[in-house]
Amino acid sequence: MPMRSEEDFLGKKELPDNVYWGIHTERARHNFPISGYPVSLSLVRALALVKQACCLANTELAYLSKEKAAAILAACSEIAAGRLSDQFPLDALQGGAGTSVNMNINEVIANRALEMLGLPRGAYEHVHPLRDVNMHQSTNDVFPTAIRIAAIYGLRELSEETARLQGVFQGKEREFARIVKIGRTELQEAIPITLGAEFSAFAEAVSRDRWRTFKCEERLRVVNLGGTAVGTGLAAPRDYIFLVIEKLREVTGLGLARGENIMGETANADAFVEVAGILKAQAVSLVKIANDLRLLHFTGEIALPPLQAGSSLMPGKVNPVLMEAAIQTGMKVIANDFIIADAASRGTWQINEFLPLLSFALLESLGLLKRINLLLADHLQTVTANEEVCREYADHSSMLITALLPSLSYAEAAAIVKEFQEGQGLSSRPKLSFREFLAARLGQEFIEEALSPFRLTALGRRPAQGDLKP
Amino acid sequence: MPMRSEEDFLGKKELPDNVYWGIHTERARHNFPISGYPVSLSLVRALALVKQACCLANTELAYLSKEKAAAILAACSEIAAGRLSDQFPLDALQGGAGTSVNMNINEVIANRALEMLGLPRGAYEHVHPLRDVNMHQSTNDVFPTAIRIAAIYGLRELSEETARLQGVFQGKEREFARIVKIGRTELQEAIPITLGAEFSAFAEAVSRDRWRTFKCEERLRVVNLGGTAVGTGLAAPRDYIFLVIEKLREVTGLGLARGENIMGETANADAFVEVAGILKAQAVSLVKIANDLRLLHFTGEIALPPLQAGSSLMPGKVNPVLMEAAIQTGMKVIANDFIIADAASRGTWQINEFLPLLSFALLESLGLLKRINLLLADHLQTVTANEEVCREYADHSSMLITALLPSLSYAEAAAIVKEFQEGQGLSSRPKLSFREFLAARLGQEFIEEALSPFRLTALGRRPAQGDLKP
Amino acid sequence: MPMRSEEDFLGKKELPDNVYWGIHTERARHNFPISGYPVSLSLVRALALVKQACCLANTELAYLSKEKAAAILAACSEIAAGRLSDQFPLDALQGGAGTSVNMNINEVIANRALEMLGLPRGAYEHVHPLRDVNMHQSTNDVFPTAIRIAAIYGLRELSEETARLQGVFQGKEREFARIVKIGRTELQEAIPITLGAEFSAFAEAVSRDRWRTFKCEERLRVVNLGGTAVGTGLAAPRDYIFLVIEKLREVTGLGLARGENIMGETANADAFVEVAGILKAQAVSLVKIANDLRLLHFTGEIALPPLQAGSSLMPGKVNPVLMEAAIQTGMKVIANDFIIADAASRGTWQINEFLPLLSFALLESLGLLKRINLLLADHLQTVTANEEVCREYADHSSMLITALLPSLSYAEAAAIVKEFQEGQGLSSRPKLSFREFLAARLGQEFIEEALSPFRLTALGRRPAQGDLKP
Amino acid sequence: MPMRSEEDFLGKKELPDNVYWGIHTERARHNFPISGYPVSLSLVRALALVKQACCLANTELAYLSKEKAAAILAACSEIAAGRLSDQFPLDALQGGAGTSVNMNINEVIANRALEMLGLPRGAYEHVHPLRDVNMHQSTNDVFPTAIRIAAIYGLRELSEETARLQGVFQGKEREFARIVKIGRTELQEAIPITLGAEFSAFAEAVSRDRWRTFKCEERLRVVNLGGTAVGTGLAAPRDYIFLVIEKLREVTGLGLARGENIMGETANADAFVEVAGILKAQAVSLVKIANDLRLLHFTGEIALPPLQAGSSLMPGKVNPVLMEAAIQTGMKVIANDFIIADAASRGTWQINEFLPLLSFALLESLGLLKRINLLLADHLQTVTANEEVCREYADHSSMLITALLPSLSYAEAAAIVKEFQEGQGLSSRPKLSFREFLAARLGQEFIEEALSPFRLTALGRRPAQGDLKP
Repeated sequence: MPMRSEEDFLGKKELPDNVYWGIHTERARHNFPISGYPVSLSLVRALALVKQACCLANTELAYLSKEKAAAILAACSEIAAGRLSDQFPLDALQGGAGTSVNMNINEVIANRALEMLGLPRGAYEHVHPLRDVNMHQSTNDVFPTAIRIAAIYGLRELSEETARLQGVFQGKEREFARIVKIGRTELQEAIPITLGAEFSAFAEAVSRDRWRTFKCEERLRVVNLGGTAVGTGLAAPRDYIFLVIEKLREVTGLGLARGENIMGETANADAFVEVAGILKAQAVSLVKIANDLRLLHFTGEIALPPLQAGSSLMPGKVNPVLMEAAIQTGMKVIANDFIIADAASRGTWQINEFLPLLSFALLESLGLLKRINLLLADHLQTVTANEEVCREYADHSSMLITALLPSLSYAEAAAIVKEFQEGQGLSSRPKLSFREFLAARLGQEFIEEALSPFRLTALGRRPAQGDLKP
Repeated sequence: MPMRSEEDFLGKKELPDNVYWGIHTERARHNFPISGYPVSLSLVRALALVKQACCLANTELAYLSKEKAAAILAACSEIAAGRLSDQFPLDALQGGAGTSVNMNINEVIANRALEMLGLPRGAYEHVHPLRDVNMHQSTNDVFPTAIRIAAIYGLRELSEETARLQGVFQGKEREFARIVKIGRTELQEAIPITLGAEFSAFAEAVSRDRWRTFKCEERLRVVNLGGTAVGTGLAAPRDYIFLVIEKLREVTGLGLARGENIMGETANADAFVEVAGILKAQAVSLVKIANDLRLLHFTGEIALPPLQAGSSLMPGKVNPVLMEAAIQTGMKVIANDFIIADAASRGTWQINEFLPLLSFALLESLGLLKRINLLLADHLQTVTANEEVCREYADHSSMLITALLPSLSYAEAAAIVKEFQEGQGLSSRPKLSFREFLAARLGQEFIEEALSPFRLTALGRRPAQGDLKP
Repeated sequence: MPMRSEEDFLGKKELPDNVYWGIHTERARHNFPISGYPVSLSLVRALALVKQACCLANTELAYLSKEKAAAILAACSEIAAGRLSDQFPLDALQGGAGTSVNMNINEVIANRALEMLGLPRGAYEHVHPLRDVNMHQSTNDVFPTAIRIAAIYGLRELSEETARLQGVFQGKEREFARIVKIGRTELQEAIPITLGAEFSAFAEAVSRDRWRTFKCEERLRVVNLGGTAVGTGLAAPRDYIFLVIEKLREVTGLGLARGENIMGETANADAFVEVAGILKAQAVSLVKIANDLRLLHFTGEIALPPLQAGSSLMPGKVNPVLMEAAIQTGMKVIANDFIIADAASRGTWQINEFLPLLSFALLESLGLLKRINLLLADHLQTVTANEEVCREYADHSSMLITALLPSLSYAEAAAIVKEFQEGQGLSSRPKLSFREFLAARLGQEFIEEALSPFRLTALGRRPAQGDLKP
Repeated sequence: MPMRSEEDFLGKKELPDNVYWGIHTERARHNFPISGYPVSLSLVRALALVKQACCLANTELAYLSKEKAAAILAACSEIAAGRLSDQFPLDALQGGAGTSVNMNINEVIANRALEMLGLPRGAYEHVHPLRDVNMHQSTNDVFPTAIRIAAIYGLRELSEETARLQGVFQGKEREFARIVKIGRTELQEAIPITLGAEFSAFAEAVSRDRWRTFKCEERLRVVNLGGTAVGTGLAAPRDYIFLVIEKLREVTGLGLARGENIMGETANADAFVEVAGILKAQAVSLVKIANDLRLLHFTGEIALPPLQAGSSLMPGKVNPVLMEAAIQTGMKVIANDFIIADAASRGTWQINEFLPLLSFALLESLGLLKRINLLLADHLQTVTANEEVCREYADHSSMLITALLPSLSYAEAAAIVKEFQEGQGLSSRPKLSFREFLAARLGQEFIEEALSPFRLTALGRRPAQGDLKP
């Protein structure tokens, strides 16, 4: 394999000539063989957009020649489009606050630009990774800016899938609107509701998730690009600082703004903690809902569509496997929130040195939630209700009596329940349901009306003549 | 001790006659001797306000007699004002989704009302804890509503202290505006900044905390009062459901609204997870800032005011104890965020059964952050800068060279640094500072100007004649 | 109130003369009004034992006069016995690595000793908090040593309650040994087991908890007493260092040893992390078991004894409240484990400055687990099985077929299940159970034998004549 | 691409004929495109060993024909050796409690065995994934058993790297044994120590890590193989159950044993929680030590070897990047511990359904710790001390005075410190060091002796004639 040699202030290093990266990437590759996970591609692509914006600003202000700029911009476009993705070999668990990722993309852009200009790799006197590609930049401003951009794109994709899931739950809300079942609190039967109402509560939680995801973007729109090393913009000319943010808005199509206190933006990672907290709220709802659904599948009130055989031993067993996957996905997102907060809290002075792990966890969570929402939406579209099971549970529950209050006084209600319970044995499958007992005792028509889906889902109770008043 | 006897469907129980609570509280007191921490008083007080609103609505609609209502309202007022606080003995780590707390306050209100009416405790045929005090309510709507109210009050108090702390940091920002020091990234010297700018970054983070705290309130304004057991409002008349929210707004002075999907509001605890996430973001900033400050105290660039002798062995040692306390407070709030998310995620079906722990953790965090902010604001008001130390670090740092870019080329800059480093030994306290070396080499006046606080804090660099262009 | 005045190197301070504490405690009391939780009393008592041991060693070696020592020892005994507990007013969330707690007990011991000697409080020229009570000690050795002692006592108490709970589960294992039910995996019916076997799995988990609790003690027996400030024993004479550990063993009755590398013992808090991890394992089992039990109560296979009325609205509702409390207790212990690891990981250089929070969380967890185990043991002693419900679930489950393998081939088994399922409708309560169907199809006797408790609990299957071989 | 068709009870599915997996894997591949991370290869390899053991037992007992067995065993060997690794495409975040992984390996073994027998893929009538490869097994016993085996191998590899790191720290302990420096507590100067002693504390912590890693193995040696679905061994013959564990010991070379209560082993995942807790203790020490080292690099007392250029802007900046990577690795392991406990706590009834995530997190942590220990050991081998800087800090610290106690009384000591401090200005770099001041004041020889490395590292102080006694 033909090799080329590069040098930095630590010395010389040979590297294969067919790679676009250079000496810094090569060093970092050997420094951090830790997790085996590469830096998120979405982060690399966002970084390419940042480099593009910087190049545009530098060119317009004549800090960079047009010829160089054209090649640099073309290289940026390729990376932003997802090409050259095998040229970013660095481990996600790297030290250096993102410096290695920045150096990696600087080197790849420079060498790809050189190639376009018909020059050999490593001919940095023509296009230099630092002097040209990284002009007026520091890792400390481009890296956090790129994280924000990647996260905003991730939030938008997530938002779309969240909307789909919400739609599916709303569809089921309508489909199951007339199916009466017993509501349960603390794993005990409470009062009758409809299955549709139960699904409306899922839809409601998901709708809040969606709204939050939408609001999240605001937190991320303020970037520190132009601040260079510590937010003072040292070594960057003022006209560039003002122009580059405009270019970034153009290139990304996002409503980004420069922070008012760039030093504060550079030193603190709290915005990411806030976003992670919001993703965690979604993960928590996900776990809660998936658990509710598998419990409803357990009671038989709904049937989750079968996805795969459930046992290597027991024939015919089908398990709620996607619910289990969803719960695990939620756990992982919750753990990522912990990582993000931990990383943010351990930052020191003028930059957070743990942004590599922080950004990895954040972008991972965005992807996980997006994909699980997509899978859930597909899966739940074909969930079915078992109306008979729903009715049986409801009809056998002595908690039905609550729906008759205040047509009955507490004392009367309690007496009826007691009478019924003494009449039946201990079996969980008595001959006569409580509803039948009530109908026999209080009249079929009265019971039908009192326990109709309409009555059960209407908010509260229209005061009626028979009502007890003090 | 004179005793009285009460009865519920589980049987009779004797309890001391001098307590205002009744049989349910007595049972719960024996059921949950777990943590030793009582239910948050702020929650009890908020619950008293909810009870007051319910009573007002029920009275206006004539479900409750005026005489009874007057006594009930008076009892509610007392509790809301913080009186009778010794009548709420239940452990924070209780089961039952808040039922015991609700029963406790129902019983205390009933017995205090009876006392006001000149009747003996336990004479529930006159004022009944359930029939009267809890009329048209369920734990599942009053308890989550009370948590929201207590949390909103807590957020407002927190917001005030956060504002104070922000003010203190802003004051220091001005006070230290002209003190030049070396900025540091990754625990290594980076480029010169001012100490004022460093404090402005603290102020900026705290200002975001304050803004978030303010926005938090929105998440909590939607309540499920009127929804009774599972959000359908079962057993509550519709006119009451509509009126009670108005009364609650009056009584609390807060802009509360009934949720559009009360079943969803009742079943899900995600709003609390979101709020907890925001408090965690504040905790993370707190840890980060406190750690930065104690490190600055370590370098000697600032002096934290001494609070107490620091060692039982070493005379004269003074430690940054409040910073350590602040970091620990942050850890506790972060752990509470974990608890809140965990509790929310494990809820089942129509109500979250772990609201007791969730609410305890949430209100604890609000109190912790409020008090530590107050202490920090007081403490940091008298933090002083050690200008000489700041200058010494800066003057000795070869990173000063960065401030001379691009008046110098990289190559020139690197050469100067090398020349200097070869001239000095390994000592951390060389005879000649880098600044003196630069002044000798490049001219005193040029260096004074290039390293002036004004130049260092101005955003970016005004393009100058001597600037290198490509 | 009569006041006295004390002075340290920060200045003078007035304090009420009736308190035993002195100026340092008074300062710390005002410095840390943060959490409202006092330092754990068990830690204070352990610290008194450490002080006692130090005093004994110093006296035997004639560093301290016998008269002074007698008074100091008497004061230590009182505190170790739990007296004077109102003299330890400091907040658990304090800075200073435990210095304030150490100063607090030094002052209380000195003043109580003075009182015993008939001298006024504050007459430190006679008995001095530092020179006499703290002789040859530093917070950095006495405080971590006291945490270990308090934790060992806590572990022993916990172990006892864990043993009780294990006993209760074992009793139920025997009681329910012949009750056949359907086992469930992934919330789906799997194969028949006995309820006794299900409880034996709980017993097994608790037995591992107990074994771990027992082993935990080892981790804590190595103490750093004698190491003074950073583990070098500076300012302490060698004869004292060797003697004091013997005295500590006598006073505590525990098999303690001095670490071989005291500097390492002083600087690192990993032993506490290990212990916390083991308590977390117990918390995890607790959550798992309590959840299983409330789910079995939900299915009706067992009945948890009713503890209190479950609803302020729904008459007759009884909830599994102690299981809910247990789950919340588990969450709190898990959160404490997080705090302990976080605190340990943030320690710097020669001592962990976050031991106050760490120790608070550790001792809190020990108390929480002890008390919940006690409550669970009492509660579960009266849990009952609903044999009929267990049988009904089992008899209706088509998974019974698995118990007939390999007397049947997979193909035959699957055909029988299919035949049955086609014969019954969708109802969850079919007329004919699967067991009845099987008996009709394959013979009553064969089925009785194949599904007997004895066959189901025997490990594996005795190869029988009818078995299918390849 | 030529396709083949397979069928299960959910229907038919086409899959590419060139893959070794079958219909179940194909379904699972489409069911769980969630994280993008494949199941750990180390788990797959361990599973192959389990399959091998089962096959051996079944063959010896004549349940399987020798011809089939030979092919199956050969396929197992290949997978155990790491071949066919591209045939395990399933996502780590899968539902189904490991069923899909088990099915995947069953299918791959069957098809590879068929290939060896000269038969086409899918000809399961000759070698069947379930009937033959999975004979007498259930996912619920083979999967947890394989996790244990993979974890034990992982622990052994980790242990080796931990030992290397310990050796490096011990080497530095000796190398730096005579370098006097100032010890620090709470980020404040405390008393003089040697740099060697500081490194001995690191070595001590790592040695405890190693000991714990070693002990960990015990927790994992008890397996539930033979228990089949829920631990009763249903459908497995007793002779197989007894023999298979022997075969497993042979195949793995590990001292494994069958649990006494296999139902308890199957239902509970607490052993993994315990192991995770121990890995967390190592992660905590890792974070603590890496942070200490980068702080020592910051003070200049040590120099970490440069690994890469530290800034894209500031020339010559070198950051402690491996320490930062180590801290991030620690955070990830701590987060994995959280995931493992969370997953274990949410398991239900007879099997933990979240073992896929749990095992992924556990094996990830083992790999992370192993690799970071390796990197740290290499890196720290060339860490150097800056003796002059160490001495300067020490010589300038007024805390030196503590080393002269009790040759001086507290009062004398305090007076000397005060005299010195009044003599110097506020500068952090005074003309005269405290040591020089002391030498001038108390005699050069006395000071040399009192502050010698030997005196500072000897435990405690040999009582001397000049000592103050009470």
